Amino acid sequence: MFDSIAIIGVGLIGGSIGMAARKYGVAKHVIGIGRHQKTLDVALRCGAVTAVSINLAESVAEADLVVACTPAATVAQLLRVASKATNKSDALFTDAASTKLGIVTELEPDVDAGMRFVGSHPLAGNHLAGPAAASPDLFEGRTVIVSPTESTSASVTRSIGEFWRSLGACVREMPAADHDRALAAVSHLPHIVASVLAATTPSDLLDLVATGWRDTTRVAAGNIDLWRDILIENRSDILKSLDGFGTALNEFQRALEDRDFPTVVRLLEEGKRKRDSVGN
Amino acid sequence: MFDSIAIIGVGLIGGSIGMAARKYGVAKHVIGIGRHQKTLDVALRCGAVTAVSINLAESVAEADLVVACTPAATVAQLLRVASKATNKSDALFTDAASTKLGIVTELEPDVDAGMRFVGSHPLAGNHLAGPAAASPDLFEGRTVIVSPTESTSASVTRSIGEFWRSLGACVREMPAADHDRALAAVSHLPHIVASVLAATTPSDLLDLVATGWRDTTRVAAGNIDLWRDILIENRSDILKSLDGFGTALNEFQRALEDRDFPTVVRLLEEGKRKRDSVGN
Repeated sequence: MFDSIAIIGVGLIGGSIGMAARKYGVAKHVIGIGRHQKTLDVALRCGAVTAVSINLAESVAEADLVVACTPAATVAQLLRVASKATNKSDALFTDAASTKLGIVTELEPDVDAGMRFVGSHPLAGNHLAGPAAASPDLFEGRTVIVSPTESTSASVTRSIGEFWRSLGACVREMPAADHDRALAAVSHLPHIVASVLAATTPSDLLDLVATGWRDTTRVAAGNIDLWRDILIENRSDILKSLDGFGTALNEFQRALEDRDFPTVVRLLEEGKRKRDSVGN
Repeated sequence: MFDSIAIIGVGLIGGSIGMAARKYGVAKHVIGIGRHQKTLDVALRCGAVTAVSINLAESVAEADLVVACTPAATVAQLLRVASKATNKSDALFTDAASTKLGIVTELEPDVDAGMRFVGSHPLAGNHLAGPAAASPDLFEGRTVIVSPTESTSASVTRSIGEFWRSLGACVREMPAADHDRALAAVSHLPHIVASVLAATTPSDLLDLVATGWRDTTRVAAGNIDLWRDILIENRSDILKSLDGFGTALNEFQRALEDRDFPTVVRLLEEGKRKRDSVGN
């Protein structure tokens, strides 16, 4: 599909993209670009990439596709540098960050000027980090949201969609603002809830936790810098989700205080119904 | 260790106790007692028990150990019936319910009158239910809390502790009031949080959930009747835990509203530190 793709940032997501691209024959050459030689060496050793570089402009010059897998706040700038450094007029650009509105808004003038970019977010990953945790199957059956704007050409959206599908993912198009609102509810809010739950568990009770606590708090082990950036970037949508959660939690608490067990059961049933509908 | 044990209620926990007791040769005969012939048939077919009965008084008469694995609210009464029906003066009685203070308080006069009972709670289980989900390894490496009172004889506590250890568990003694307070924090609060989180997720976003949401809400799929009983039984300790959680969540929300990101990071770090200390 591509002769060469360049991945900026070869952590869990970038490394997994490289592995999947190689596994499925999506690219002959996969160049991993990063700031730390040590991480790049691990990525190379794991087979996530076929070459590595710490020089962004040099190594993206011949790439057919550039994927930025760095923190959201750095994506627009890095891709802008990459688009200026490319020798290929039809080079494609995308990213994998957890928030989309800031990135696509910032790159909109570049897209208007001809940059072949569309934002992406693979709904995959876990609480681990680094290329050593990467897997070629990370995207298998997962959803990747692609967020075209009014300026995005349909052919770019189609090509990036094909790229993700060739890694095993299902692709869904969604405006960036809708994406960020949805992710606040299904990912960012759960992270805050898990974090606060873990943080408020008395230390002397930690040796009594069982699978319930472990599951409910698992994501709290996630990378702090990554999550700090997400919370900053998607602050207003997250605050709305937090409001809704807080209101429902207060309702539950009031019902329990008032011994209003029918309401308690109704809330438990509503939670079970939605959880059951999703499957394990 | 025992010639015969009787298990009242052969669901996930009761069925797993039977399987483990058979696997480790803890009992020659394992009698499963229940109200529904269908569940008993499944338990027998799964190898959880060696015989079944719907007649409590008859089937506990020769048992060396009777374990009640029924909802907390029914345990004291069922064990009292069992202790009156036994032909063996040294028969042991315990339970496996998720709350302890109500049960041990209710049975205290019987213990004073010679009943060889001590309350237990295996910190094992999952969101599944029924004997078909049972496993002989459910207690392997898990903690079982045993809650003796001032009236409990040391030999009863020792024997019940040995029983759980012979199923692969680690045993910890803890007064019933301490148990209930601890479980409110590490089990009952996480359940409510997971339930409310699942319940407040907009239905049209459920096809966008990934592993984070799945982990954080998993326990919300648990049995409603069981959890209703736990919330009723341990209401006051749970309300205290909910208060602490609500206060910390408000602090997080305020910090995010105020763009006080150092506080946001501090709370994320506190959650990560505690989660990391527990392991996967």
